[in-house]
Amino acid sequence: MTSDDLFTPIFVPQAVRDAASGRAWLQALLDAERALAVAEARKGAIPAAAAERIAACCEAERFDPAVIAEDGRRVGNPAEPLVRALRAAAGDEAGRYVHFGATSQDIVDTAAVLVSRRVLELVLADLDGVAAACAALAERHAATPMVARTLLQQALPTTFGLKAAGWLVAVVDARRRLAEVRDRLPAQLGGAAGTLASLGERGPETVRLFAAELGLREPDVPWHTARTPLAELAGALDLAAGTLGKVALDVALLAQTEVGEVAEGDEGRGGSSTLPHKRNPLGATLTIACARQVHGHASVLAGALVQEHERAAGAWHSEWLALTGALELTGGAARWARETLESLEVDPARMRANLDATGGLIMAEAVAFVLADRIRLPEAQRLVGAACRRAVESGRPLRDELAADPAVAAELSAAEIDAALDPTRYAGSAAAFVERALARFRGDSA
Amino acid sequence: MTSDDLFTPIFVPQAVRDAASGRAWLQALLDAERALAVAEARKGAIPAAAAERIAACCEAERFDPAVIAEDGRRVGNPAEPLVRALRAAAGDEAGRYVHFGATSQDIVDTAAVLVSRRVLELVLADLDGVAAACAALAERHAATPMVARTLLQQALPTTFGLKAAGWLVAVVDARRRLAEVRDRLPAQLGGAAGTLASLGERGPETVRLFAAELGLREPDVPWHTARTPLAELAGALDLAAGTLGKVALDVALLAQTEVGEVAEGDEGRGGSSTLPHKRNPLGATLTIACARQVHGHASVLAGALVQEHERAAGAWHSEWLALTGALELTGGAARWARETLESLEVDPARMRANLDATGGLIMAEAVAFVLADRIRLPEAQRLVGAACRRAVESGRPLRDELAADPAVAAELSAAEIDAALDPTRYAGSAAAFVERALARFRGDSA
Amino acid sequence: MTSDDLFTPIFVPQAVRDAASGRAWLQALLDAERALAVAEARKGAIPAAAAERIAACCEAERFDPAVIAEDGRRVGNPAEPLVRALRAAAGDEAGRYVHFGATSQDIVDTAAVLVSRRVLELVLADLDGVAAACAALAERHAATPMVARTLLQQALPTTFGLKAAGWLVAVVDARRRLAEVRDRLPAQLGGAAGTLASLGERGPETVRLFAAELGLREPDVPWHTARTPLAELAGALDLAAGTLGKVALDVALLAQTEVGEVAEGDEGRGGSSTLPHKRNPLGATLTIACARQVHGHASVLAGALVQEHERAAGAWHSEWLALTGALELTGGAARWARETLESLEVDPARMRANLDATGGLIMAEAVAFVLADRIRLPEAQRLVGAACRRAVESGRPLRDELAADPAVAAELSAAEIDAALDPTRYAGSAAAFVERALARFRGDSA
Amino acid sequence: MTSDDLFTPIFVPQAVRDAASGRAWLQALLDAERALAVAEARKGAIPAAAAERIAACCEAERFDPAVIAEDGRRVGNPAEPLVRALRAAAGDEAGRYVHFGATSQDIVDTAAVLVSRRVLELVLADLDGVAAACAALAERHAATPMVARTLLQQALPTTFGLKAAGWLVAVVDARRRLAEVRDRLPAQLGGAAGTLASLGERGPETVRLFAAELGLREPDVPWHTARTPLAELAGALDLAAGTLGKVALDVALLAQTEVGEVAEGDEGRGGSSTLPHKRNPLGATLTIACARQVHGHASVLAGALVQEHERAAGAWHSEWLALTGALELTGGAARWARETLESLEVDPARMRANLDATGGLIMAEAVAFVLADRIRLPEAQRLVGAACRRAVESGRPLRDELAADPAVAAELSAAEIDAALDPTRYAGSAAAFVERALARFRGDSA
Repeated sequence: MTSDDLFTPIFVPQAVRDAASGRAWLQALLDAERALAVAEARKGAIPAAAAERIAACCEAERFDPAVIAEDGRRVGNPAEPLVRALRAAAGDEAGRYVHFGATSQDIVDTAAVLVSRRVLELVLADLDGVAAACAALAERHAATPMVARTLLQQALPTTFGLKAAGWLVAVVDARRRLAEVRDRLPAQLGGAAGTLASLGERGPETVRLFAAELGLREPDVPWHTARTPLAELAGALDLAAGTLGKVALDVALLAQTEVGEVAEGDEGRGGSSTLPHKRNPLGATLTIACARQVHGHASVLAGALVQEHERAAGAWHSEWLALTGALELTGGAARWARETLESLEVDPARMRANLDATGGLIMAEAVAFVLADRIRLPEAQRLVGAACRRAVESGRPLRDELAADPAVAAELSAAEIDAALDPTRYAGSAAAFVERALARFRGDSA
Repeated sequence: MTSDDLFTPIFVPQAVRDAASGRAWLQALLDAERALAVAEARKGAIPAAAAERIAACCEAERFDPAVIAEDGRRVGNPAEPLVRALRAAAGDEAGRYVHFGATSQDIVDTAAVLVSRRVLELVLADLDGVAAACAALAERHAATPMVARTLLQQALPTTFGLKAAGWLVAVVDARRRLAEVRDRLPAQLGGAAGTLASLGERGPETVRLFAAELGLREPDVPWHTARTPLAELAGALDLAAGTLGKVALDVALLAQTEVGEVAEGDEGRGGSSTLPHKRNPLGATLTIACARQVHGHASVLAGALVQEHERAAGAWHSEWLALTGALELTGGAARWARETLESLEVDPARMRANLDATGGLIMAEAVAFVLADRIRLPEAQRLVGAACRRAVESGRPLRDELAADPAVAAELSAAEIDAALDPTRYAGSAAAFVERALARFRGDSA
Repeated sequence: MTSDDLFTPIFVPQAVRDAASGRAWLQALLDAERALAVAEARKGAIPAAAAERIAACCEAERFDPAVIAEDGRRVGNPAEPLVRALRAAAGDEAGRYVHFGATSQDIVDTAAVLVSRRVLELVLADLDGVAAACAALAERHAATPMVARTLLQQALPTTFGLKAAGWLVAVVDARRRLAEVRDRLPAQLGGAAGTLASLGERGPETVRLFAAELGLREPDVPWHTARTPLAELAGALDLAAGTLGKVALDVALLAQTEVGEVAEGDEGRGGSSTLPHKRNPLGATLTIACARQVHGHASVLAGALVQEHERAAGAWHSEWLALTGALELTGGAARWARETLESLEVDPARMRANLDATGGLIMAEAVAFVLADRIRLPEAQRLVGAACRRAVESGRPLRDELAADPAVAAELSAAEIDAALDPTRYAGSAAAFVERALARFRGDSA
Repeated sequence: MTSDDLFTPIFVPQAVRDAASGRAWLQALLDAERALAVAEARKGAIPAAAAERIAACCEAERFDPAVIAEDGRRVGNPAEPLVRALRAAAGDEAGRYVHFGATSQDIVDTAAVLVSRRVLELVLADLDGVAAACAALAERHAATPMVARTLLQQALPTTFGLKAAGWLVAVVDARRRLAEVRDRLPAQLGGAAGTLASLGERGPETVRLFAAELGLREPDVPWHTARTPLAELAGALDLAAGTLGKVALDVALLAQTEVGEVAEGDEGRGGSSTLPHKRNPLGATLTIACARQVHGHASVLAGALVQEHERAAGAWHSEWLALTGALELTGGAARWARETLESLEVDPARMRANLDATGGLIMAEAVAFVLADRIRLPEAQRLVGAACRRAVESGRPLRDELAADPAVAAELSAAEIDAALDPTRYAGSAAAFVERALARFRGDSA
């Protein structure tokens, strides 16, 4: 990926790109070095004055990412050249205490965790926005009838509120998991062998102070090749992006010209100059695209669990771009999904029209149940099934075919048939489920 | 996969295969139907006598999996033909109340959760065994020196106890996550549209009773196309299998002929008739093979998060074999890793010999630190570096090259050099980290 | 996966399951042993009588897959126990020549190739059926107008023939690639170290005879850890299944209740007892489900390219179930796609109705081009754009809004406007492209 | 991925980054627009003067990638804003003919193919270098004995030449496939609906001229949602990177301190300041890291085969970064593998020492075969097996244990035993296989 990348800005908002940029990584590496010096000085492992001097130098603006990156090519990671540059910046006296007792992976892993936390703040904020938008839709449309679709076929009535409630619970769950994982992200400090040998007895306490300085969890033991934190993060990002992908797919399907039940609201977006009638579901489209890419990156990260000995020969290195990509594109999915839902135009009239499109056939089950209050269920189902078949063949509404059947008419009046065919009376527990989803959302947000 | 599969038994223990078998799935489908009838009778939605009759018929032995499977081909899932068979078994009176208000996916998803829980009991027990074996190794070898290896190169001393402690924490974390996910697996009940329309007002309460009957979590709303539970399960299985894969890879690397620090203990296993000297790391090998396959299945499951509307056209169906495979093969990884570790033969003498193989070069950092107590660190590093280079060229021990350098000899006596080169004195925080890992294990097991 | 698997029969036709079954693998292993004995006897490496006796014993019915599989658990592959069983079957004299000079992987890899070829015959036959069905649709509907949809929005007119032609070319390409890969599948014979050491000078010639006996390609060198053949096969299966998944997704989308342009034809299939109006796109659904699973298996296989030394510790073992699954489920996708397309009911009237649904808006581009013959293109586009906006707001047909604009009416008569709005006149190169696709199909089939 | 990316330069050489950069993509988009104008002018669809003017403007330096990217965010692709910018640059008269009849995907897909071809030139050149390096190693070490290792255990003798020959054939195969796929990459031109409607009758001929102008294959039909070309490319990149990963894994394993048979040669690289004895296999490590990442990107691309109708809502968009990443990182793998192999230091003495490390045990099979010339094979195997067990227990060389057994000594003299134990005499067909590999390489290179 390069500096003049034409594609990332399409998917990823500027703030997320900034938080995952090379410069942000550079600052995170420096934050780790700074915290290390501070913690070591506090434990007496290095002089306090050296730590102060080092800390003062730990600002990304002092260093050139391009130089660090090119030098990193010779050793296989960016920490080693940065340490050299930082030593030079800190001067002879303090410089030799830079990175004391640490290994490059301590710094790169800790920076990975810091970058992750910083990007996750943005992602979680957008997920909050997505959840709030889902909740608003669920509440507003708790009683808006629409058709439920299974295998892409009209099935039975539901409400748009229940659909949005389903999105809401999934988003709340994904958000909870992502926050959980974030809160467990540990600092990394083990030295070259994971023993912190050059810190002598001071090792564990230095780790504690180091983690505290950065506001990170203190690990039980170094996790140089036990990649649980990153694999869990990858899984949580995949879950979040996939969940948003589901919401986006529903939006794109509902926005189809032939369905027309929703549209993305921002008119300046997704329009086509040559095709003026189109209202492209652009936000949904890009959300889905982000989710697909996150899935690929997450697979690389989970696949990197199997690492050799105390430092892996390749699997570790494979994480950096995959993690950056997974973070960025989950951020992209969250922002696009949020924009999509916050601007979503819902067309209850079209929902109602689609509900009626089969001439009542989707109410067949409901009619059979009503009829079964009078006659046995199998017979009721047989009569309704026959009426359905006649309706399909004749093209007449199911209502007329039912009324025309003496065996049905003997049990149900015309008004009763109409009532049985009313989709708005057949939403079952939809309202109750919406309430539960909203309660869950409010509980989680509280 | 077929009835006479030559491969699955190599990877997966019999008990796990049984718990994930077609018959086990069949019973789980029937358990779901039984619980549905019981819950509905309790809410008055169907007659109690019918529920009793249905419950009595819900035994897998009454049905032929092959017939259900073949019939399932016509409708795309096994629940529909099973419902028909169960209705026939229950007789006219009770049969019409079978599956009342439910949709096939309610039953298949609930069965998936039941099968998962049952397999997970076995997997978690084997993970407990793995953790206990790691803990035993960590404790027994807390002070057994060995060399740490980074990028597959000897780096610095560590202890085998710390290596095992690293495994232990990772396994404990993976086990915790898997148990967490298991505890959150929800029942599924929503009816064809997710509204439980045919249950009228009784929907939410029926869901509660249904879940309680099966000992499963009650979902907030139906999750027909919000696949968080399965995606989280997939992630947790991938994490567990990948973590075991890391342990296994270390074992296989340590068991290399040229390294020889461990061997798998079961002599009747992994031997080669034509190659009598080989002690194949068979358990490690098969653990790794399982982990790779779990990763593929987990990717299918996480990729299935993006589902259409109220029932997906394909993504749902793609879950069944992937879930079964992921469960089975995680079970395979856990059993093989357990057998590997429980029988692991550790060779501390070989560890020590390997530690000495570089003639002290891996102690260069340690010597430089000792020397840096007398002279400035950069000069100390320069002197030691030069001695290392001479040692590499001459093939003589670093000890001799250091002693032969007047600048070094001026600061360190021969005894001090020997002490500085003693790898057993350079394990840093290894013992403390082992203690922390054991404390974590005991805390989690308590 | 187990003997009473409820799910595989839903996806995979019986013949494919048989060709990939444990028994089929067993026979393939025996075919490899038989060919080895025959080739070695021909080269004088073993006695001819022994080879005859061995060959006579190489019948799967003589062996119990369950026993082989259970014994395989102790050594990590099924070849070793089979060799022991085959030796016993062949008797003392001939038995000692069984598997002479070979390693287990020679037999397992050669069997994998044989099983693959046998399954591929079935898959290719079904792909031929899919291609023929696409060609028939392309030809029959070369002039059937329908709307093209981009980002799920109606865009411009096309023909159903062109859509089917697009499917056709993709299927023909995927089929070609799969056949190519099949033809390159090599035999495997290298002995334990890949040197065929125990065959002395006879190695290369024995390999040649062995491959010839089985009708397989002779490899340049043993490929025990150079998995190009399987990785290429995995890629070709993924390509084929993914291509079928695209066709199936189009079918499922066209079959939506609100679109209704196609339906799967087999009425006995995909119907719902409780939802009589539904025509579930079952074949399309299961095709998609197969494609998703193949993708997971193929990823395991391609991920297994990175293998250690002369025999991998895990990556090799991870291939067996993944390969079997990828073969079976590509077979499933091909059969389901074929059934779907061969029975596809196409509704040209509904296609035409959908084409008219936007009141001419999808013809805006076409009108602008016609108008641009009289006035400058930007001005033409501006006028048409304004008319479109008025049409969207008023709900009136674009025709009326255009005619009502004096600037348009000054250039185009009502008849000219009608002609410009006729979607059947705006299919561009659709017919030519259909011809090219059919020519390609006929060329490839010839 | 961002402009100051710290990681990509570690993996990817500058030339590859340049060829896949945003600027390179921008130029490729412009190349497509230029070729379109030229082709259309040639067919008379637009004025020749306009085409000339457009062509003159199609230089990347005229446009700002950052602006194009940000504007692309509003429409979901970079082609649309570029077309607007190009129209402005070309001026009123010519500008209106920019992009005539094309759709954004025509331009983006064609640019993807152009970028791919340009990167592939570099990748193929490095693959040539890798193959040449393998061939040189195979030739030079055709008779260098080393031990073959299976499941990471010493198995039998082989030669380093045969190991390199195995790499060679795999690299040659992967290169061939990548070149094949490159040669089949088609141009894309279909217009918004794939019908090229606005080109009237001129469609197919314009496509032909367009493809010819760019030196690309002319497609049978537009492939907007038939992604065979990209899926095949993804598979070929995955195959190439995975093949290089296998070579790199072997190098890293052979370079282990305890094995020491090879070392990466560039001393300025991979060294550790604090660990002077280490010779990190850096090139191998980064090759493996690249391969793992390519696998993730390739999975996204193959997963994107399933696209909707005439333009996908997300799957298409997911390709851009994945393709760029797959190209770059395959380029990274090829360059790192080449540097690794070209500088590889091989230590035949260490290979020989490792071959002798088991005291002759790896020659057990060979001795048994020699003995079997005198007595029956089972008895020979029994005697040798017993001697092996005694050797393992006593620690004495197998030679001594064999000589000490009267039953063996009765058949074989001490000199015969020594000869039978000589690993250099047990390389079987290794030399012949090396010859075949070299012949294949020379044939493919010719």
